[in-house]
Parts: sequence; C-alpha cells; structure tokens
Amino acid sequence: MTRWEPNARGRLGLAALELYSERGYDQTTVAEIAKRAGLTERTFFRYFADKREVLFQGSDILQNRLVQGIENAAPTLSPIDAVGAALEAAACPMEEVRDFALRRQAIVAANPELQERELIKLAALAAALADALRRRGVPDPAASLAAEAGIAVFKVAFLRWAAQDGDSVRQTLDQLIRQSLAELKGVTAGN
Amino acid sequence: MTRWEPNARGRLGLAALELYSERGYDQTTVAEIAKRAGLTERTFFRYFADKREVLFQGSDILQNRLVQGIENAAPTLSPIDAVGAALEAAACPMEEVRDFALRRQAIVAANPELQERELIKLAALAAALADALRRRGVPDPAASLAAEAGIAVFKVAFLRWAAQDGDSVRQTLDQLIRQSLAELKGVTAGN
Repeated sequence: MTRWEPNARGRLGLAALELYSERGYDQTTVAEIAKRAGLTERTFFRYFADKREVLFQGSDILQNRLVQGIENAAPTLSPIDAVGAALEAAACPMEEVRDFALRRQAIVAANPELQERELIKLAALAAALADALRRRGVPDPAASLAAEAGIAVFKVAFLRWAAQDGDSVRQTLDQLIRQSLAELKGVTAGN
Repeated sequence: MTRWEPNARGRLGLAALELYSERGYDQTTVAEIAKRAGLTERTFFRYFADKREVLFQGSDILQNRLVQGIENAAPTLSPIDAVGAALEAAACPMEEVRDFALRRQAIVAANPELQERELIKLAALAAALADALRRRGVPDPAASLAAEAGIAVFKVAFLRWAAQDGDSVRQTLDQLIRQSLAELKGVTAGN
C-alpha cells in the first residue's frame, strides 16, 4: 500500500534540516524527521538510505547539471573554461535556495561524519567532470587536472558565498565562481 | 608496566598492511594485527585510535614536511611554485617506500570507509598548506586556491605514479608532481 505523498522528498529534507539545527544531528532520529514531515519512517527509507543521505539529495542534481554544462559548453572553450561555464550554470539555481544551502552547510561543518560524506560527494563530482571532459576529447592528465581545479574553485567560491554578511551587498555564487577561477588563473600564472 | 618495543609503530603498520592484503580490511581485527606484529592489543591502542588510523600514520609526517617546505621555499617563489616546491620535497622520501605506498593505496581504494578518511586527510593537508601560505603573507583567496590546486596536482601525480608498470622506465613521484603542475599551468592558461 504505497500512498503518494506530494513532495515527500523535499518535506523530509526540510524537516531534517530543522531538527538538525534545533537539536543537533546526533540527537535526531529518522522517526522524528518523518513525524515532523507528517510522513512515516517507511516513507523516509523509500527515499533515503540513512539520516546522512537526506542532506545530500542535491548532489545528484548538481552532478547532472555539471555534466550537462560540459556537454553544452561551446566547442571552442578550453577545458578549464568549459568547467567554469558548467560550474556557473550549475550555481545559478542555488541562489534561490541560499538560506537552505547555508543552514545545511553549518550542519555539515559541525559534524565530521557529514564532512566526510561531503568530501566523497565532491570527489564524485570531480570524477564526473573529468569523464565529461574526456568525452569531449580532452586527454588525461588535462581532464583530471581541469576537473580537480574546477572543484577547488567551487569549494573556495562556496565558502566566500557563505561567509558574506546577509545585509551587505551580496555577490551571487556564479559571480564568485567566475572571480575565483580568474584568481586561480592568476595564481597558476605566478602572479 | 610499559615495556619499550623497538619500532612498534612501524611493525604494527606492516602487520596491518599484510593482513588487510591477505584477508581484507573488514575481516581483520586489531587483536590479529597485534599478534602478527608480536605485540599486545594494548600496545596497538597506545599508538592508534582504531584500525583505520594505522593506515594513516604517514599523513602527519607528510603534513609537517609540506609546511616546512613552504617555510623553506625561496621568498621570490610565487605561491603556487612554493606549493610545488613543498610537494616535490615531501614526495622525495616516498620513493623509498613505493611498494608500501602502493599496497596501502590498493587497500584504501577498495574500501569506501578508508577512502573517506583519505579525503579528510587530504583536506587537512590543503588547510595546512593554505595556513602556511598565509604566514608567508599570501592573502586569501590566493592562499586557498594555491593550496587546493596543489593538492589536486598531488592527487593526479600520485595516481600516475601508482599506475606505472613495475618494469617500464619509471618516473619518480617528484618528477610527476613537477610535470603535473606544469600541465595544470597549461590547462589554466587555456592551452
């Protein structure tokens, strides 16, 4: 008997985020998350393997966007600029969910187990970017290096985005990615 | 009653590596590692928190070497070249323990739990490099970007080093680091 629950995935994600912020990640159970979302534990496990995964539902979407971004990049773009274009395109929709992303980030930063999962996901993003570049005809090690450099840019840009004060004039994540990539180019050019 | 055991740390590391290769990581207990090393379980826990950590005893040494490498780098070197010099200096002694490093790598690659720990250690190395650059007067985001780019170079170079056939003419890890950094510079210059 599977009842369809409208947007169960999103409701579970929001409920988990609220509870992890209020009580801490370790102190929250799957049963409590399901209850807060008005759903059953069974429904939770239909969507997520465990209470860690509920915080990482965005990473598949991000990976698909990045791969698509590489596929859509103009053929004349260099590998690193194709990566930059893909990162910028993937970052744009994140502006809409900035508050969610920053609350999530604070929870992940406070918990070593979640940090580990985050790093695994970033490593998977780098691998997916490198694969997409190879399909574009970029040989190794250039494909791996451009992908890893792109993820480094993403990490640094994300932290700058998160560190911005709520009231000051704010730069969007895609602006910060463009800027950080330009700075990486400066850094590797020895400037 | 603490009896001094000559090179207990090294003996435990070698015993763990042997057993993880023979039986698999999951199937090996701390008691078995201690026994193979001719030591007690109690001695094991004097050196390592758990059976994961025994595979990561090199990472503190590596981190110290990297930080020292940045401190010793000529003041005229750009941030990325200081990172490159530190990586090369840290890589040199690894040539002596190549077989150990490759067997260890195979065990880590086969186990998601160990991969996570590896990624945490690499993130810690990046943070230590960035701190050392800041002490050199490099501002952010250049410090973070140069550090992250350096770790990307190290990862790619290490995989190339590990993938080389035993019999073919072999490049050393520090040569591959120099080469990979040059290639990263080419990639970010849009070549």
